[in-house]
Amino acid sequence: MKDFTFCAPTRAIFGRDTELTVGRELKAAGATRVLMQYGGGSIKKSGLYDRVVGAIRAEGIELYELGGVQPNPHLSLVHTAIDLVREKGIDFLLAVGGGSVIDSTKATAVGACYDGDVWDFYCGKATPEKSLPVAVILTIPAAGSEGSNSSVITKEDGWIKRGLGCELYRPVFAIYNPELTYSLPAYQTAAGASDIMAHIMERYFTNEPDVDMTDRLCESVLKTIIKQAPVAVKDPTNYAARAEMMWASTVAHNDFLSCFRVGDWSSHQLSHELSALYDSTHGAALAVAFPAWMTYVYQHDVTRFARFAVEVMGCEMDFFHPENTALAGIAALRSFFNSIGMPTTLSELGVPDDQLPLLAAKVKRGPDGTTGQFVKLTEEDCLKIYQLMR
Amino acid sequence: MKDFTFCAPTRAIFGRDTELTVGRELKAAGATRVLMQYGGGSIKKSGLYDRVVGAIRAEGIELYELGGVQPNPHLSLVHTAIDLVREKGIDFLLAVGGGSVIDSTKATAVGACYDGDVWDFYCGKATPEKSLPVAVILTIPAAGSEGSNSSVITKEDGWIKRGLGCELYRPVFAIYNPELTYSLPAYQTAAGASDIMAHIMERYFTNEPDVDMTDRLCESVLKTIIKQAPVAVKDPTNYAARAEMMWASTVAHNDFLSCFRVGDWSSHQLSHELSALYDSTHGAALAVAFPAWMTYVYQHDVTRFARFAVEVMGCEMDFFHPENTALAGIAALRSFFNSIGMPTTLSELGVPDDQLPLLAAKVKRGPDGTTGQFVKLTEEDCLKIYQLMR
Repeated sequence: MKDFTFCAPTRAIFGRDTELTVGRELKAAGATRVLMQYGGGSIKKSGLYDRVVGAIRAEGIELYELGGVQPNPHLSLVHTAIDLVREKGIDFLLAVGGGSVIDSTKATAVGACYDGDVWDFYCGKATPEKSLPVAVILTIPAAGSEGSNSSVITKEDGWIKRGLGCELYRPVFAIYNPELTYSLPAYQTAAGASDIMAHIMERYFTNEPDVDMTDRLCESVLKTIIKQAPVAVKDPTNYAARAEMMWASTVAHNDFLSCFRVGDWSSHQLSHELSALYDSTHGAALAVAFPAWMTYVYQHDVTRFARFAVEVMGCEMDFFHPENTALAGIAALRSFFNSIGMPTTLSELGVPDDQLPLLAAKVKRGPDGTTGQFVKLTEEDCLKIYQLMR
Repeated sequence: MKDFTFCAPTRAIFGRDTELTVGRELKAAGATRVLMQYGGGSIKKSGLYDRVVGAIRAEGIELYELGGVQPNPHLSLVHTAIDLVREKGIDFLLAVGGGSVIDSTKATAVGACYDGDVWDFYCGKATPEKSLPVAVILTIPAAGSEGSNSSVITKEDGWIKRGLGCELYRPVFAIYNPELTYSLPAYQTAAGASDIMAHIMERYFTNEPDVDMTDRLCESVLKTIIKQAPVAVKDPTNYAARAEMMWASTVAHNDFLSCFRVGDWSSHQLSHELSALYDSTHGAALAVAFPAWMTYVYQHDVTRFARFAVEVMGCEMDFFHPENTALAGIAALRSFFNSIGMPTTLSELGVPDDQLPLLAAKVKRGPDGTTGQFVKLTEEDCLKIYQLMR
């Protein structure tokens, strides 16, 4: 059992119409000049933009905005945002969107308080010491960035995608109205489900013994997604399904499920390369990467994979041949991803076979040349896992 | 599904020797003059007192202390603490102990910032507007006060026991070293387990539909206690059992398990009267009260009680007669409490039969004359439940 420090200070404000409280909440948090970032404009079509702007202006807060944040958010837009923050004397950042918008906002928050290039933080050259406060109105349950200490940014020069863990920019508050997710297309809903599950599974597959409680908590949230994602895909205005997915998004990644455990994270590293080079949706890349990683490593701890199969995927335990149960669980996960419309092969992502060595070479590895904790993977291991995704 | 606001800002610092960080943490939190409260002196015998005092003094922090906090902590000692805070210009409060010490410290924190009598907050005459910061070194996993917004104080005049929910005094940080609980006697370990389970069960029995995710999370923590409490009772120095009980104590009561749900809390009200008049250990009173309450109300939602029986107590589902499963679950809970040395009858607590009408009359009820949410209980209902405890 690993020692830990846990703090999830983000205040969650959950329910219908909660976006209308954003002005009041910002004011209470001391905001006077706010930069709001958002994505491709769907919030204008839905009317959310007008409601949010109205609620903020009603409190006499000066509001600036920057739309156009893309999936796998780009460093160049973060630079633009930082310039805007400095030019306008912004003192509070608001993200209205999903993980990409929130991550771009978080990068802006630490970048604006730093003299050098914000990329220094993402490539490990520097550590943030200060951050502007960040708040969120969540529209896509997936990345968990609304409650997490992490953000992921893509540098266009070389298409390098890197994450940064930093307690300073955990959002002050996050607003959740499940109805805001009713308009999410089935594909994005399913990709969100896959992302949430991946965040939990990265924590679930650990070598730490005696972690029953967080094992059970992980299984609980995984089972929630397995139940609710198919409902949300088929019945997009199902409030309960949308609500549980939204809250699961946060719980999966605010480190509550990390207590006592060491996470793995190599499936994320493998999938980051797919997203960086082929602009695959993060969740879709994870749906491809995770079952392949599982197939490659399950023999490292057959019992844990059998437990996953039984407790999460509902497989029957084969006490004579636990390995069969472990494999059945992986197959069931792959089937689940397919059933909600996720890809599970590289060809579905448009990744040609001859690119696999390049991908394997690009995977971020530590000083010892490996990635992952459950099993430490070399470049050769990464290549073999990419080959299992074909 | 109920709307909610959730924020659990307490930073948990978990692991062996973590109490040695208390001076550093207090200093980082801005403390300069600290009042440390503790209980009956067991922390002196164990050496914890010396380690804590040393760690705090090493940071140049001025330290004052007040020992002697009793179980079901008394209002008079809170008054003493408030006087001390004012006299010495204390700016930070530290609780070293379990729920009683923490609750007494929380009451001190709001009382010291208020001109009237702190009891005004507990009897509903006033609402706290300010609080001193509170930190905790936890030695008894039970009340969950180390991460919760609640405290319970007993006024000796009339032996009235009342709780107060207040976000202002949620601890800034809480320190957990499972080894500090190795010396807890079996009875206190078991009473802690019962208290933790009760906090979860108060939330579990709700009329809110579609709360699968928090149902599962509740079940996970309940199963953790059912597994680990007997281990800790029999093998007091089992680190994993002590660690999971400690963390479960916090998770059970920091409101994470309340999301989407309306809690019941009538079993707590029923047990408060037992503790106030007969000074029963809180957890022991709950072990008596909860199965009786369940027996009285299970027909209100047989399915929920059947789910509890199957998912928590491991009973087999009788699909032909779910009522039998519900009753089997209640019986199994009672057996579990007995197996870890908890009482389940009033006679074990030394409560005479002729006192039941007095107890029922004293139970705190709302303006409509009832207590509880799952089923609203009148005074007559309360009496019938007390009679089921015989």
